[in-house]
Parts: sequence; structure tokens; C-alpha cells
Amino acid sequence: MRAYNFSAGPSTLPEDVLKEAQKDLLDFAGTGMSVTEISHRNKKFEAIVNEGEELLRELMNIPEDYAVIFVQGGASTQFAAVPLNLMHGGKADYIVTGNFAKKAFQEGKLYGDCAKVTSSEDRTYTYIPDVKNIPFRDDTDYVHICSNNTIFGTRYVEFPRTQAPLVADMSSEILSREIDVSRFGVIYAGAQKNLAPAGVTIVIAKRSLIQNPLPICPTMLQWKVQDENKSLYNTPPCFSIYIATLVLRRLKALGGVKAMSEINEYKAGLLYDFIDNSPFYSNGVEKKYRSVMNVPFVTPNAELDEAFIKGAAQQGLVSLKGHRLVGGMRASIYNAMPVEGVKALIAYMKKFEQENA
Amino acid sequence: MRAYNFSAGPSTLPEDVLKEAQKDLLDFAGTGMSVTEISHRNKKFEAIVNEGEELLRELMNIPEDYAVIFVQGGASTQFAAVPLNLMHGGKADYIVTGNFAKKAFQEGKLYGDCAKVTSSEDRTYTYIPDVKNIPFRDDTDYVHICSNNTIFGTRYVEFPRTQAPLVADMSSEILSREIDVSRFGVIYAGAQKNLAPAGVTIVIAKRSLIQNPLPICPTMLQWKVQDENKSLYNTPPCFSIYIATLVLRRLKALGGVKAMSEINEYKAGLLYDFIDNSPFYSNGVEKKYRSVMNVPFVTPNAELDEAFIKGAAQQGLVSLKGHRLVGGMRASIYNAMPVEGVKALIAYMKKFEQENA
Repeated sequence: MRAYNFSAGPSTLPEDVLKEAQKDLLDFAGTGMSVTEISHRNKKFEAIVNEGEELLRELMNIPEDYAVIFVQGGASTQFAAVPLNLMHGGKADYIVTGNFAKKAFQEGKLYGDCAKVTSSEDRTYTYIPDVKNIPFRDDTDYVHICSNNTIFGTRYVEFPRTQAPLVADMSSEILSREIDVSRFGVIYAGAQKNLAPAGVTIVIAKRSLIQNPLPICPTMLQWKVQDENKSLYNTPPCFSIYIATLVLRRLKALGGVKAMSEINEYKAGLLYDFIDNSPFYSNGVEKKYRSVMNVPFVTPNAELDEAFIKGAAQQGLVSLKGHRLVGGMRASIYNAMPVEGVKALIAYMKKFEQENA
Repeated sequence: MRAYNFSAGPSTLPEDVLKEAQKDLLDFAGTGMSVTEISHRNKKFEAIVNEGEELLRELMNIPEDYAVIFVQGGASTQFAAVPLNLMHGGKADYIVTGNFAKKAFQEGKLYGDCAKVTSSEDRTYTYIPDVKNIPFRDDTDYVHICSNNTIFGTRYVEFPRTQAPLVADMSSEILSREIDVSRFGVIYAGAQKNLAPAGVTIVIAKRSLIQNPLPICPTMLQWKVQDENKSLYNTPPCFSIYIATLVLRRLKALGGVKAMSEINEYKAGLLYDFIDNSPFYSNGVEKKYRSVMNVPFVTPNAELDEAFIKGAAQQGLVSLKGHRLVGGMRASIYNAMPVEGVKALIAYMKKFEQENA
């Protein structure tokens, strides 16, 4: 039986995509080779990379003067790549709204004067600071944000207006809602949540900003080099790029990001409404900033939380344990989580409440 | 029909491994989740990473005081990681025996005083310099080599004795022959040739050497951090690590590296003997240094080379085109290439010779 997998990442993928990949795993496009065995210089594989890039451009409405590249190392590697590509004046501002935003900030400090210009640390990252009142510094090379905070279950509703280029880690929400890419200098995202198996990271960067990486920037971390080589500077993570392309094809067929966004709002609405109407479950995030992708919640106590998670797994509702920094439960309901999965979770929550309230 | 795939990388994988992966692609170990969907913090996935590490340790007889880690970014990223982890005195020696050895050298120069202490550039990299007569410098932080040169088809027979730690890129020959790991400070290898789909890189490093990465080293490139986190500092390339573990299990069942080395010598021997006994085909590499993994060869002219490659593909012998720096053909006959594949290639070569000599 296929489980409903609420893992924060790596995460559930569309079943039809997995079935297609299963077929290609021994013979890709009539080549007699697995999709994992084919050379990245093979025309049929190059077509996959190009199609993936084109679909991303189309689905996210990415302006032509932006590079769109597939790289390795996850968002954590990009935490270094951001300053190494952009920090020409030695100065950057960070908004710290969660664990990964903080890690990005700490990594930035390896390379220059980074300031935490505002944070939601004071209330355990349960909200997003007012973006209209942030004391950005003069001459900062960029402003870094994490647009959706996987662990704490928050997301930006509006994005700050900044003089300096705005850089966003969108790992846990890319392609889940419409975004005006032209508002950003750089967007990056580990693909293992909404897009592909772990191992590939998307970078979308305004080309005029990335022409002069710092001299100490490793060649592989230079976005310019990856852009000039169309993501084929060295052997890329072929299988993850291939799956990303299949997922993007499917997203387009479903009606694109707008349609997906509506489904996501519906799924999250079902779950939050149920939690809000229950005296048993609670979610501590300020309502306005609740994430549509990651829904943390708790029962009245830690013992019940544990029983909840165990019982859920027995019903095929898996990976619901919250991050250790937060405890309780977390349901990650990314693009590939079907509405039925959310409904099955709510049905189980109801039953568990009746039995334990 | 399954092709015989002579690609230099990504490369052929064992068919039984692919079949097992195909099964796990929708339900891994009874979890109801794909192996591509399961959280890297799931005990069943952690078991895969640990087993992969243990098998590498056992099969390569890696001393206990060495870290064994799975990272991202390919050998090209390690070209930077090597100086960023080891170059404390700002000085390193490189032996340049091919394209990737040269790239590693150029990348090293971003971080300090790197010297090309010897090279085989003078005869288009068709040999390996005498390792007994290399003018290593005093106080060099490390000596870097590429042990098997994929493009030019050469390999070291002996390794140099050095005062400084010896660092080797073994991407295109790891696990193909017995190596005394204790002779090396660091061994690294992109896995997409002998071990796994593209996307994971193995680093084997003496722990005492890697405790003080340079302050500018990105956290993700710090071998110490990856070692301390048992390759799970961030989300790893799970699918590639999983396949690597399956390939390592199979290698152990086949008798380990020694047994594999004998098969490899046999396969390469068949092919080189055939070439040497033919007036039609030739291989320009000094015999002593011929690679057992990558066999470049040519017919009497470029037109025939092209016809050869085209005809071969029609027979299901694919990816035989040589690298653009060398031209002609190249048969990469890694661990997973069956003896039958080499025999089929030779049969085709015979036939092509008869028809075109």
C-alpha cells in the first residue's frame, strides 16, 4: 500500500511520475540504457535539461535576463554561494525567520559584514516581521530571506521592497504559489520538497548581478559558469534533473502554478480549519503568516503527540514527527500531496481526538 | 534490447542493481514510500548510508582513522575542497597527467601557490611521468594526482612517495583495483563511473589532516563537518547513495576488489591485445601506463572513425565516441561492463576491419 508521506524533505512525489521513472530505469527513450546510465552529453539527456529549464521559465514566468541553472549541494551550499557570487562590497543584510535563514546568515558571516536586520526569534519564529519596517543598511550588497520556513511553518505574505537585490531561499515552497520573479535578484531552492529527489538545487539569478564572483569562489559555485555551460559544466545530477522535468511537465498539464496554488490553499485550509475548530489540536503560528506547505501542530501533551505519530504510521500516514526544534507533529503538504492525503490525515486526527480527548 | 554502454560517465550500472532499484522506486523496504521520497533521517535510510560507508571501508581496506563521506558536486567541486581543507601553508604541488589533473591544478591556484611539478603534456598525456624523479618542493601542503586519466586512457602503475600528504582523484578507477589507502592523505571520486548514478562523490580522508579547513571554506565543503555528521549534515543525494550501496553489496558478493581487478585486467587485456594485433586499429598510449578502465583507439582515419561509431550504435554498442580533445573512439569498460560487452565490441571491430581495411 502506498503511504501518505508527510515528510518535510525528501518528500512525496507524484505517483504517475514515479511510474514513468520506473519504466525508464532500464530503458530510457529507447536508448537501451537506464536514465541513470546515459551520458550527460547525449542529445536525449541534453533535451531533458533544456526542457526542464524551459518549463521552469514558463511556469514561473522568469524574465529572459535571468539565468536558470541546476546545481548540486542543496540550499546549504547556496548559503555560501550567495555571498561568494554577490558580496562585492563585503556587506549583506539578513532577515532571520527560522533555522535555515539563520544558517544562511551564519554562513554569510564567513565572507563579510553580515547583519541580522530583523528576526522573529523573540517569539520562536512563529511570525514574519513586518516587511515595511526593516532597518536595511546603506550599501548592502543584498538582502537575504527564507520565504517559507519549513520547521516553524511560516511564510512571507508580502516581500520586502529593498534597494539592494533581494535573495530568497524558496526551497520549501518553490512552484507552490505565484511569485513575481522580477522582484528578486536571486531565488534558489533545493528541489527535494516540491520538485525532485534530493540532489539537485535550482538557482534563478538576474544575469547582470552574477558576472563577478569573488576570486575565492570555487568554480563550481560560480553561477555565471553554470549559466554559461547550461548546467553542464561537469556531470550534473542527471536522475534528479530528469525527475524534476517530469514533475514540471505534470505541473504544466495540471494548469501551472496558479492552479497548483489554489489546490495548495484548499488543502492547507482544510487542515488549519480543522485544527482551529478543535479544542484538542493547536498550531502556534500567527494566522496571517501560516505556511501553506508545512503545518506544525500539537495535541495537549508530548505523550499524546507520540501516540498520535505512532498510530498515524499504522494507518499509512507517515513522517509526521515535528522537527526536534519544535516537537509535536508537522504535516508537510507539498504540491505532490493529494487532497485525499490531507483528508485521510484529518479523518485520523478526528478519530484520535475522540479516543483521547 | 539492453545496449552495451561504453560511456565514460555517467556509465553502465549492473542490470540486477537497476532491477532492484526499479522495484524500490515505488515501495522501498515495505515503507510504502519510494526510495526517492523517504526522509534522510528515516532509520531505514540511515541504515543505507551506514552500510555504504561500512562496505567501502571493508572493500577498500580503509584504516579506521580515515573519514569516509558521501558529498555532492562531483570531483570538480573537490578540486576546490582539496586546497580549502588542506592548504594551510599556502603551497601545493600538482602532477598534471590529463584534463582533470589540469583542472584541479588551475582550481588550486585560486587559493595559493600551486606548482605543476611535472606533467605529461609534452606527449599529449600518453604516459605517466616517472614517479621516482619528481622535483617536489619543500613545505608543500600536499601533492595532487589524478590516478586514472579518463580522457587519455592512462593510469599510474606506481604512486609517488611524498613527504606531504598524497591526494588522488580516483573518479574513473575507484574500486577497480587494489589500492593501499594508507599511502594517501585523501582519495576522492565522483561515483558516476564505477559506483552509482551521477550526483554523489566519495571522499576518503585521513582525519588528522582535515581538522582545520581554511576560514573561507564553505561549511558544505568542510570534510570535517561532513564526517562529524556522517554524511547527513544536510539532505544528501539519497538515490545515488542508495544505488552505490547496492553496487557495493554486489561487488562484495563477487569477491571484492581483488576479484573485480582480475576481471578488469582480463577485459582490458582482450581489447588491447586485439588492438595491438590489428594493423587497422591503434592506441597511442605507452603500454605500461595503459588504463584498464578507459581504452581510446582509432582507425586509420577520422571518416572511418565516424562510420565505426555509427555502425557500432546500430549493433547496440553505444557511447563509443572519444572525447573531443582526443577524437576517435573510447571504450570505457568500468566494473559494470560485462565481459560479453567487451567480446561483442571486439567482434564488431573485427567485422568493421574486414569490411573497411
